[in-house]
Order: sequence, then C-alpha cells, then structure tokens
Amino acid sequence: MSRKLQRVAIAGGTHGNEFTGIYLVKKFQRYPNLVRRPSFKTVPLLANPQAFAIQRRYAEKDLNRCFLPTELQASTSTRYEELRAQELYQTLVANPASKVDFILDLHTTTANMGLTVILVNHHPFNLRLAAYLCAANSAVRVYSAYQPGKPLGFLNSLCELGFAIEIGAIAQGTLRADLFQQAEVLIHTLLDYLDAANREVLPPVAPTLTTYQHLKTVDYPKDEHGELLGMIHPHLQDQDYQPLHPGDPLFLTFAGDAIAYTGNSTVYPIFINEAAYYEKGIALCLTERQTLEL
Amino acid sequence: MSRKLQRVAIAGGTHGNEFTGIYLVKKFQRYPNLVRRPSFKTVPLLANPQAFAIQRRYAEKDLNRCFLPTELQASTSTRYEELRAQELYQTLVANPASKVDFILDLHTTTANMGLTVILVNHHPFNLRLAAYLCAANSAVRVYSAYQPGKPLGFLNSLCELGFAIEIGAIAQGTLRADLFQQAEVLIHTLLDYLDAANREVLPPVAPTLTTYQHLKTVDYPKDEHGELLGMIHPHLQDQDYQPLHPGDPLFLTFAGDAIAYTGNSTVYPIFINEAAYYEKGIALCLTERQTLEL
Repeated sequence: MSRKLQRVAIAGGTHGNEFTGIYLVKKFQRYPNLVRRPSFKTVPLLANPQAFAIQRRYAEKDLNRCFLPTELQASTSTRYEELRAQELYQTLVANPASKVDFILDLHTTTANMGLTVILVNHHPFNLRLAAYLCAANSAVRVYSAYQPGKPLGFLNSLCELGFAIEIGAIAQGTLRADLFQQAEVLIHTLLDYLDAANREVLPPVAPTLTTYQHLKTVDYPKDEHGELLGMIHPHLQDQDYQPLHPGDPLFLTFAGDAIAYTGNSTVYPIFINEAAYYEKGIALCLTERQTLEL
Repeated sequence: MSRKLQRVAIAGGTHGNEFTGIYLVKKFQRYPNLVRRPSFKTVPLLANPQAFAIQRRYAEKDLNRCFLPTELQASTSTRYEELRAQELYQTLVANPASKVDFILDLHTTTANMGLTVILVNHHPFNLRLAAYLCAANSAVRVYSAYQPGKPLGFLNSLCELGFAIEIGAIAQGTLRADLFQQAEVLIHTLLDYLDAANREVLPPVAPTLTTYQHLKTVDYPKDEHGELLGMIHPHLQDQDYQPLHPGDPLFLTFAGDAIAYTGNSTVYPIFINEAAYYEKGIALCLTERQTLEL
C-alpha cells in the first residue's frame, strides 16, 4: 500500500432487513471508542436508512446493485436507491473531505455461510487481509465474486480496498447474539490489521489463500408460469461450502422427486436458500475452490 | 362431536411471507387426492393472497388479528386485511354452501418451536386431537393462547374446531424441505383422525395433555425513543420450551450486559426471537406448563 489509510467506512444496512450490520453500526455510533484506532478515522455508516425504516431489503431497488459506474453518473435516476447510491458515491469517493480509503460492508444471509469475506476484486492488500482474518478465525471463508470485466454494482465497488462480510445463517429482521459477537470480534481484528498496515508493522500471513470463486447461479425448479415446483433438497440444506459432486441432489420437488446436480465437476455451493434471492431466481451459487498465491 | 364434519379448511399464507403453509396449500390444490378423505371435503385455502403477492406478512394490517367479532361486522373497515377477514368470514362461516366445520391454519416462525399446535380454545375435540398428534410425533408441542374472555382475532377464531400449527425455526420467505415434510406428515395424521372421528372409530388418546399456557409477552430492552438496546441472550436463543428459572439471562445488551429474568417462578419461553414480533414489541412469550385432563 503506497499511502496510509485516512478514513475507513463500516457500512451496515445496505439491505434494510439485515439487522446484524445495522445494530453493529448503531453500536459503533453510540460507542465510537470501540472502533477508534490511532492511525485512521473510522466512519460507521447506515447505508440504506429508508429500507431500514420500512424493515425491508430495499425501498424501490436493491441498493447493492446500484453502484455500477454508468449509474453513478446517470442524471435520469429517480428511484430512492439509485439516488442514495449517487449520494454515497459523493460522500465516500468524490468529496475529498469525506472520501474513504477502505469500505467494510456488513451483510447477513439466511444461508449457513458463517462468516464469509466477499471479495469484489483481488487487490493484494484485500487478499492478505482476508488471509489474516482466516488465520484469526478458522470459521472464516472467502468467496470471490470477482469476474474480470464484469462490474457488480456492489457498495464495495466504490473503493479498491475493502470487501463485504456476510454473516449467517440468520433470519431477516432478527439478531442472534452469537453471530453478532463473532462479527464484532472479526471487525476488531480487521481494524487492528488496518492500523498495523498504516504503522507498517503488518503481521505475516500464510503464503496462500483458499477462495471460493463464483461460477454461476442455479434457479429453483419452476413451471412455465414461473411458479416454484420444489425446494432445496434436505441433504443440501445448510451445507454451504461442502463439496457437491455430480449426481448429488440439489432439489426436492413438491411432488417428491429429487433433482440432481448434473455438472461434471465437484463444486462448492453457497447462498443455499437465501431468502432474498428467491425473487432473483437464485436457489444457490456454485463456486470452485481455488488456492491463490499471496 | 354431535354431528359429522362436512368441510375442513387447510389455510396457508395467513401471513404472506410464511412459505411452508403457502406451498403446502398450493401442493394440495395441485394434487387434491392427497388431502381427500372419504367422509369430508378438504378445502385448501390461500388466506392472504395479496400479502403473498408482495412477499410480506401483510399488506396493510396483520390479517391474523382481524377476526374479532366486532370487526367482522364493521361497515367502516377499509384496509385490505380487514376486508379479507370479512370475506373469509362470509366464506367459512356465514355461507351455508361453503361453511367449514374445522380450520387448520399453517404458520411458520423464526423461533425454534418445531411443530407447535396453537389452541384458541379448549374444546375437548381439539384437546384430544392435539393429544393424538403428540402421540404420533413426540416433537409436537401444544401452546394454548386461550384466555377466557379475551378474544384473539385469529383466523381460527372463526371456528370452534381446529387450531393453528406453527412450524420453525425457519426464515421468512424460505422453505426448508425437512420442516415441509414434517408438517405434511402431521397434516395427513390430522386428516386421518378427522376421518376416523366422522366414522366414529376414533383411536384412544392419552388421558392427559401437556400444554404451555400463555402467561405474558416480554419486550426487548429499549431506550426512551423505542430504540433496541439488546438482543436475546445467547443462552436463551433457540431454547423454546426449555425451563427458564428466576435469574436466568433473557437479554444481552449491545453494551455487553446480561439482563436476567426476574419473575419468581419457572416459566417456559416460546416465540423466542420471532422476526415478525419485533414490530409488536415481543421478544418472547412466557408460558406455564400445565397438564390438562382429557
């Protein structure tokens, strides 16, 4: 890292019904000492206050798809989240007085993903930080959503440094103290690392990092009207990050038939049965396990 | 029972984001043979289609609080669920051609309540049926919401016979195949019992029934603005139906302090951390374990 981090954003509530990040941010706003570090300023941020006010993922459009470069400049945007994304762009990127150098974005999922780092790029600093978090807590996994040339539109797209942390399994609109505490510990570990980076006393990390690289999404079985015909197979439910082999069951139809995975290689499913993805036509994401050199 | 059951309603989607009941009802509509019994007609019913269309608990008002006798006759009702309750009253009670004799209402909860029968009265037929279900599946529990003289406004209030089944833990807006299948088996057991009742060949049931009688609800710790100050204590999370003793922890504040249960008798909490109850100011319900003679 060529220059020191000045400001670090911790965002929660990019989705208004993901309470863990929201109440962590509110806690950090109430007790700023907790996230204060000597070498940078920490900015806790409620990303989508309108969605939180109505206790839903979003008011008009998923905010975490609104950060595409073309949309951030568009003068034709009218929806709440499009305008909010532009506002966050102004605050976190364009305005020198409030610009941040690192964004941590806190999310939750109904899938059994534990604590997952979600990379939107493979910047060496992010990879080493992810490796450090994995070493600090062996339950941490790293999912890479990065696909060269394909913009994602995530809040994290605003900043080269940083990533999201996905916390689960937890129902939307609820808090679980165990996951709240695990996430909080991880955030402190992360802030300490950033502070060590600024002071150029970075701890060593492992030479490699295991990542789960995004391959594709799989939709539920549906009829010709788009009506759901089945659900995640009981053998697959909660088995995020476990190997899925060709022939293993993916779905159980309401008629009682199993539908198998027909790919020809072993993959690692994640976001299995995420509530917010029913409307997106995503029953699960398939990933490939990779080892990256650091 | 003095007269035979003619029509039995199976309602799902009284809350539009509780998918298990909704897709069980859709399955029964698609495959009516599954719920056909020789001695009565089974009517699968999507109770709140508008709420399901928007994938929310309700459109304007919780439908399952709209069945108070005074509201069913009110000519001043304007909200969707108030009108829908009146429509369901006409269909299920007032119209002799569609009137039902028994209502099973299917719900889900984010609390770890397994399969819970929710009684709105202590009609001997309902108690014996509940006892039969407990014998058929030892995981079934019976919660009595019945408080003499206090109308509840539940869909089940429309009919003396019948009750709700609460299924959990499951996130809103998702299906879990294991719970879907357990609920389906229980419904078949129930329909078989109703058919046996009509044929006067009822199987014997145990002489007593263990119920969890509603005592009161407990709200989260909040500040003077109604802002949440804590969450369910990790020791209590998922411990529905387990004894809570005076002094046991109820909550963990965001500041890290435990808040204990200060009652003076052992109680049995349920609906612990139900997502839909955050807005109702309910963190959990306290119940008393009772043994009813049948």
